[in-house]
Amino acid sequence: MNHHIRDWLIGPPLPTTQLADERLNKVRALAAFSPDALSSIAYANQEIFLGLVVAGAAGLAYSWKIGVAIGLLLAVVAVSYAQTIKAYPSGGGSYVVARENLGKWFGLIAASALLIDYVLTAAVSLTAGVAAISSAFPDLWSYRVVLSLFFLVLITVANLRGLRESGTLMAIPVYGFLVFYLFMLAYGVIKALFTGSGSFADTAPLATEEVTRFMVLHAFAAGCTALTGVEAISNGVPAFKSPETRNANRTLLVMAILMGILFVGSISLTQYYAVVAPGDETILSALARRILGKGIPYYAVQTFTLLILVVAANTSFAGFPRLASILAKDGYAPRQLSFLGDRLVFANGMILLAGLSGVLIVLFNGDTHALIPLFAVGVFLAFTLSQSGMVIHWMRERQAGWQIKSLVNGIGAVATLVTLLVVGISKFAEGAWIVVLLIPLLVAMFHTIKRHYTQVSKQLSLRGLPPSLRPLPPPRVVLPVSGLHRGIIEALRYAQAISDHVTAVYVEISPGDGDRMQNEWQRWYPDVPLVVVPSPYRSIIGPILDFLDETDREHNDGQLASVLLPEFVPAHWWQNLLHNQTAWMLKLALIYRRRRTGRVRAIIDIPMYLEK
Amino acid sequence: MNHHIRDWLIGPPLPTTQLADERLNKVRALAAFSPDALSSIAYANQEIFLGLVVAGAAGLAYSWKIGVAIGLLLAVVAVSYAQTIKAYPSGGGSYVVARENLGKWFGLIAASALLIDYVLTAAVSLTAGVAAISSAFPDLWSYRVVLSLFFLVLITVANLRGLRESGTLMAIPVYGFLVFYLFMLAYGVIKALFTGSGSFADTAPLATEEVTRFMVLHAFAAGCTALTGVEAISNGVPAFKSPETRNANRTLLVMAILMGILFVGSISLTQYYAVVAPGDETILSALARRILGKGIPYYAVQTFTLLILVVAANTSFAGFPRLASILAKDGYAPRQLSFLGDRLVFANGMILLAGLSGVLIVLFNGDTHALIPLFAVGVFLAFTLSQSGMVIHWMRERQAGWQIKSLVNGIGAVATLVTLLVVGISKFAEGAWIVVLLIPLLVAMFHTIKRHYTQVSKQLSLRGLPPSLRPLPPPRVVLPVSGLHRGIIEALRYAQAISDHVTAVYVEISPGDGDRMQNEWQRWYPDVPLVVVPSPYRSIIGPILDFLDETDREHNDGQLASVLLPEFVPAHWWQNLLHNQTAWMLKLALIYRRRRTGRVRAIIDIPMYLEK
Repeated sequence: MNHHIRDWLIGPPLPTTQLADERLNKVRALAAFSPDALSSIAYANQEIFLGLVVAGAAGLAYSWKIGVAIGLLLAVVAVSYAQTIKAYPSGGGSYVVARENLGKWFGLIAASALLIDYVLTAAVSLTAGVAAISSAFPDLWSYRVVLSLFFLVLITVANLRGLRESGTLMAIPVYGFLVFYLFMLAYGVIKALFTGSGSFADTAPLATEEVTRFMVLHAFAAGCTALTGVEAISNGVPAFKSPETRNANRTLLVMAILMGILFVGSISLTQYYAVVAPGDETILSALARRILGKGIPYYAVQTFTLLILVVAANTSFAGFPRLASILAKDGYAPRQLSFLGDRLVFANGMILLAGLSGVLIVLFNGDTHALIPLFAVGVFLAFTLSQSGMVIHWMRERQAGWQIKSLVNGIGAVATLVTLLVVGISKFAEGAWIVVLLIPLLVAMFHTIKRHYTQVSKQLSLRGLPPSLRPLPPPRVVLPVSGLHRGIIEALRYAQAISDHVTAVYVEISPGDGDRMQNEWQRWYPDVPLVVVPSPYRSIIGPILDFLDETDREHNDGQLASVLLPEFVPAHWWQNLLHNQTAWMLKLALIYRRRRTGRVRAIIDIPMYLEK
Repeated sequence: MNHHIRDWLIGPPLPTTQLADERLNKVRALAAFSPDALSSIAYANQEIFLGLVVAGAAGLAYSWKIGVAIGLLLAVVAVSYAQTIKAYPSGGGSYVVARENLGKWFGLIAASALLIDYVLTAAVSLTAGVAAISSAFPDLWSYRVVLSLFFLVLITVANLRGLRESGTLMAIPVYGFLVFYLFMLAYGVIKALFTGSGSFADTAPLATEEVTRFMVLHAFAAGCTALTGVEAISNGVPAFKSPETRNANRTLLVMAILMGILFVGSISLTQYYAVVAPGDETILSALARRILGKGIPYYAVQTFTLLILVVAANTSFAGFPRLASILAKDGYAPRQLSFLGDRLVFANGMILLAGLSGVLIVLFNGDTHALIPLFAVGVFLAFTLSQSGMVIHWMRERQAGWQIKSLVNGIGAVATLVTLLVVGISKFAEGAWIVVLLIPLLVAMFHTIKRHYTQVSKQLSLRGLPPSLRPLPPPRVVLPVSGLHRGIIEALRYAQAISDHVTAVYVEISPGDGDRMQNEWQRWYPDVPLVVVPSPYRSIIGPILDFLDETDREHNDGQLASVLLPEFVPAHWWQNLLHNQTAWMLKLALIYRRRRTGRVRAIIDIPMYLEK
């Protein structure tokens, strides 16, 4: 039953041999790696608008300048990553680059930043997608949390089935978005040639605040979320068809140009037309409505915005589990994250990502604007570490032209560091502090996990004093009995098969029961001793543990008695509620009572199956 | 640590020998058994008022008549129970009386009704108590759910500590309530002699509905909750000092008279003064305010109303666990409910009661009025079954005067049956249907549990074909290994101590690992065979289960191989998250995979303790 549901949902298990090494051509690679980058204009433009609109027309007049500044930053970052692609053809994620060039600790910081980032990318993309479609269909807005979670579940299931199946599907939203959006921008420019420009003085609401330098920096910081996803291609170089490096770099170039056109284009047109969005609409929706009118093209733009944002959330489902599995293989994360699941994907990482993103969506009530302050810190921290690592990389390698290359990455590092500081400080109180707090906690967690694994492997190692390989002496066996019944008979038959030294023990709760039990026992097993231990406080576990300690002390033969536990297994799960679970509790008590002796107490379960 | 908190909260364990048989004199018995009965005027008056006020002055004019009708019903029920006390000096709860005289099924129906009742008594008393104190301090009303839960936790902990300790404490609220309340009524009567009567025409809000027969019956039905708790003394006859029957009957008489005075007195004064309560005040509070003014006496009355209601909730903590333990001993309820806990009380029953009452309080948002429709059905069903049982009892016994005695109980049975029908029908849509639905479900549950226990004891019985007492042949042992480490070495030493036939099995997930493992294994254990089983789908559990089936089939020696599981026990609980729990999952799979063969597969746990 359970299996049927699972097979229907995520498909039957796949054999390891199907782990094929499929390569992407440039067209499909762009679809696979760019959605996060391309779609980030949806929330970046919105944040710039929200940051400036409080200062009315005077504030909104800055949006074009901020757009150009971010466009320049995009160029710097893209060029920097182009160099990373050349240096790390096997995939230069920030974690790898930082770890190799800056050392373990910076690697872990980059990893923490990236993991946080992936979670936020999923959450922000989904809520922004729902905001886009709710702009077109305002009734959906009250269901935004449920809708975001619905899309989250959808992409989680798709990813658990295996990415390959969803690979082709992703091309449709990406190219559909590009076609409709570029068409809209072109149409907007042409239209602009025939109509005059608008003025924010006519459209903007009254200013509630004055324009300040902080406000402009704040809006710039929020708009920097437009750059999220630029690094995706450099992480995935090995997925490209040969020649990988060149194809990856070409794709990066195309992507950066498209990003620039989309971002600067839409922000310029917004300013030209002096478009302002009411409270329940996104600024991009207002722009599209202004250019296209409220017809089918407008609805198509909004729908494809939703779709590309869903696909953008999907890219986290490639990045997060892969990074988590690398961390797990390095011993910094729970080992389970490195296991390939039934469908040859890192299922545990995907479920973890989905859970964390879902929690964020619920906690922040599906509100993109509330999530954004947490977002950019991780991104720019990872950028900075990656670029700084590249500077060190070139200085170490000293290949031809290393000075120029260092300089390029150095400019990238400084630019992203400055942005990081602007973002961190201007957004600190609004939520960036959470990430600033979280990163050292994550780094500490990684470190603790690594230490645990190291210590375990030391303790398990066969090196050093070779442990005795001789068999242990025949065990003494203790059999706790609650009465004389078939379960006990079977257990005793087993006990006598493995040991000549079997003792039964009975815990007497009501005075007098012990004698009755002793008499009955003697009739069946005159040659197996039954010890009756009183339990004045009516506990079962305590007296048995005490008896075991005592008998071990008495025999003093270098071993701990094995405990045989007959255990009923009812036919139906609910019947467990009707039994005392004493065997189970005793087992837990025996396993979790640590002994300093280094000797082993075996616990032997004899399941007895009840039929009805 | 855990133990310290528990000892501080509920005290250290008590030895069974302290289970003393303390007897109560009449004064303390009244305090112990009457709170539920006496305090029920708090919600009964309130319900009559709420039922009639919708019809304004014309409606409220009926309250006096309803009060007298309920007073008469009280007299009938009290006389009936006086007879029960004589016939069942060992405690004649409705369950016992119905089971003995009407048979198993009616006994189970009575038990279901009573259990529901106890849960509702706790919930209703607490919410009514909080309503009483919120009438005096209106700010508390918004915290009613939390306050009710607070008092629930308080009495739960007090009861888990052992009732004896709280026995004396209970006298204070009960006698304090009686003193203040009787004083208030007397003062009200005297004051009435000097002032004229009021008129509802002046005070009552405008009628929104006409007076109908249904409305009056409805108010009567709600007011019948005043009778809850009358049966408490007849359940507890053995707790009285000798002569038990006479003392119990005297106490019942006093209690019934007090109930009558409180109930009829307060309802008459309410009508005489034409007191009406605003929405956020109880009618009893309004009456007390009218008679006493808003001074210290008023606050004392409200405080003692709260306290006696808390103590009334407390009586459920005696009744519910006791009835549950009787049911458990009869095999109708989970056995755990019959265990005396550390403090010599039926702790499991108390926790169950507290949990259920707490859920009701939360679900019904701490609103007494919403809970009441569920309440009276159970009470009057139990009354009816108990009285009917007594009729049969007298007819069977045929002692002197059996005709009169039958008649008295017969009148009681008919009166309570009629009330039951009135209550059930008039309150059906408001919530009584829940109880009408629940009772057959509970009866079915009791029956199913009994059947399960009967079947288990049949399966375990040594009667019939005597099972073989010969020891089993020496076991074959299979040891799943994940690698060569100290845990495996220890496990193998144990395996070799109990068997000459040990096989190790290794699940190969990545092709090639098997060969490496085989080579290493041969170096250490050339004489123990290691079987490598491939796992194309990367599962660990499945291939091991398959291997076990196969090896059992091959050997065909009438036994199933024992499975030895080395299990790491980390030093800290959180470290469990860092390990795969394969041993644990394998154990579950082995235990819960049912085999039809009747043969036993032993599962041997070898815990290995990690130090850090």
